[in-house]
Amino acid sequence: MSQLSEKSAFKCFGGWQKRFEHDSRVLNCKMQFSVYLPPQAQQDEPLPVLYWLSGLTCNDENFSTKAGAQRVAAELGIMLVIPDTSPRGEEVADDEAYDLGKGAGFYLNATQSPWDRHYRMYDYLMDELPALLQASFKLGKAAIAGHSMGGHGALVLALRNPQRFTSVSAFAPIVNPADCPWGQKAFTAYLGEDKGRWQQYDACYLLSKSNPKTRLPILIDQGLEDNFLASQKLTRPLERLCIECGYPGEFRYHQGYDHSYYFIASFIEDHLRFHAVHLNRLR
Amino acid sequence: MSQLSEKSAFKCFGGWQKRFEHDSRVLNCKMQFSVYLPPQAQQDEPLPVLYWLSGLTCNDENFSTKAGAQRVAAELGIMLVIPDTSPRGEEVADDEAYDLGKGAGFYLNATQSPWDRHYRMYDYLMDELPALLQASFKLGKAAIAGHSMGGHGALVLALRNPQRFTSVSAFAPIVNPADCPWGQKAFTAYLGEDKGRWQQYDACYLLSKSNPKTRLPILIDQGLEDNFLASQKLTRPLERLCIECGYPGEFRYHQGYDHSYYFIASFIEDHLRFHAVHLNRLR
Repeated sequence: MSQLSEKSAFKCFGGWQKRFEHDSRVLNCKMQFSVYLPPQAQQDEPLPVLYWLSGLTCNDENFSTKAGAQRVAAELGIMLVIPDTSPRGEEVADDEAYDLGKGAGFYLNATQSPWDRHYRMYDYLMDELPALLQASFKLGKAAIAGHSMGGHGALVLALRNPQRFTSVSAFAPIVNPADCPWGQKAFTAYLGEDKGRWQQYDACYLLSKSNPKTRLPILIDQGLEDNFLASQKLTRPLERLCIECGYPGEFRYHQGYDHSYYFIASFIEDHLRFHAVHLNRLR
Repeated sequence: MSQLSEKSAFKCFGGWQKRFEHDSRVLNCKMQFSVYLPPQAQQDEPLPVLYWLSGLTCNDENFSTKAGAQRVAAELGIMLVIPDTSPRGEEVADDEAYDLGKGAGFYLNATQSPWDRHYRMYDYLMDELPALLQASFKLGKAAIAGHSMGGHGALVLALRNPQRFTSVSAFAPIVNPADCPWGQKAFTAYLGEDKGRWQQYDACYLLSKSNPKTRLPILIDQGLEDNFLASQKLTRPLERLCIECGYPGEFRYHQGYDHSYYFIASFIEDHLRFHAVHLNRLR
């Protein structure tokens, strides 16, 4: 535990909701993240993990306080890991807009100044954070999920690393950042004008190029009253591509639901049970 | 609906989480409150209601976003009504401390200046708000619950009006405000030095004087790691009194749990099912 400093701990559904701080070598700043340790963490068996990647403007506490995921995680014995959405701290470059800079890291490794000094969330999530967690907890298999920008992150991480995750799910994900305003703005700033370099972080591109032998189960929920569904081209381009490629994705559209945590809370149980099957916690 | 202005509406577990604004005659200011309308609100039958009174520093959104109550309310067909904790607005008297003034109305009718002009949460909750709701929704029986200062409010309203509620429950309630620092400070400010006038808002006093023929079922949950358990004398004085009087209260103490919404989220389902029995939604 030496590299992790525990900032808070709340008993919750028989387990513990905790927040940790650590010095991130990859991001070059102090970072906080949250976890939910289910009651089964007391046992000696490896804990399956679900990573949750949050959307624009969030930190690690939005999902922890609003999604109500702990109840089902406690039942299924799944650890939740909820990272922040960007590097943090006074020395970290930022922008006045909500969709660039802090709270908007887009889960990539920036190559453009001034972002390249800290914005390396892809490496943080694929390398540094799992190693830190493995040093403190006995971890089993991992799945990944997220919301909006975090749905983009979950899909990109899973599609690029199918051997690392059992399954991936998302709520209202950005699926084609190269072709929507949020993604174009962020990718231009973080990665530069060369769109060839954007492809490694574009779920639609990655899925179209994926190896049929290492396909992961995908579950996507999308609210039909989501203000961003049309303007940011959420979800649908990926569904079309899955149909074209015969990729095993399940896409569910929900009448009346929007982009908020009330939507996530309404369906998070289904996502946990979906991942539990692939994490071997449910048949 | 004419007196209520709908400020937001989120679909949630098949029902609707809504926020309303209205001009309060009793409180002499604009007020907001939240409701959860379960899917059964579409039917023509009267909806049973659970009022939730929040604790110090809260408004109507803390419970709405953090407790995860909508899932079970949707299953049971119970409407949730979540009022604010005090009058609001620039013209309303306030104090720098978190435990006096806005966010700390203590669910009473203040008699002392400058508080007496707006701080009349007791009348607001017993008269004005139910009448407003009845004009807009078809309501059935009512139960009441709350947390901390809101547990105090729920107990006081229910013990003084047993004909109006089927049942009352609380998390970590202030039960004897006349004998704890939060209560003494607030009651001195709002009601003056004469402790005789405090009794009408003191759950322990009210329970000791209650009519054995009109006793309500009570459920109380208390975390044993709650920082305020000893210092604010939460829960236990009321339990002792229930035992002495043979009052039908169930008191549950939970190892490891604190005063937070993670505690509430962990046990809110039990409270909804407890009230559902008395609201005739469950056997």
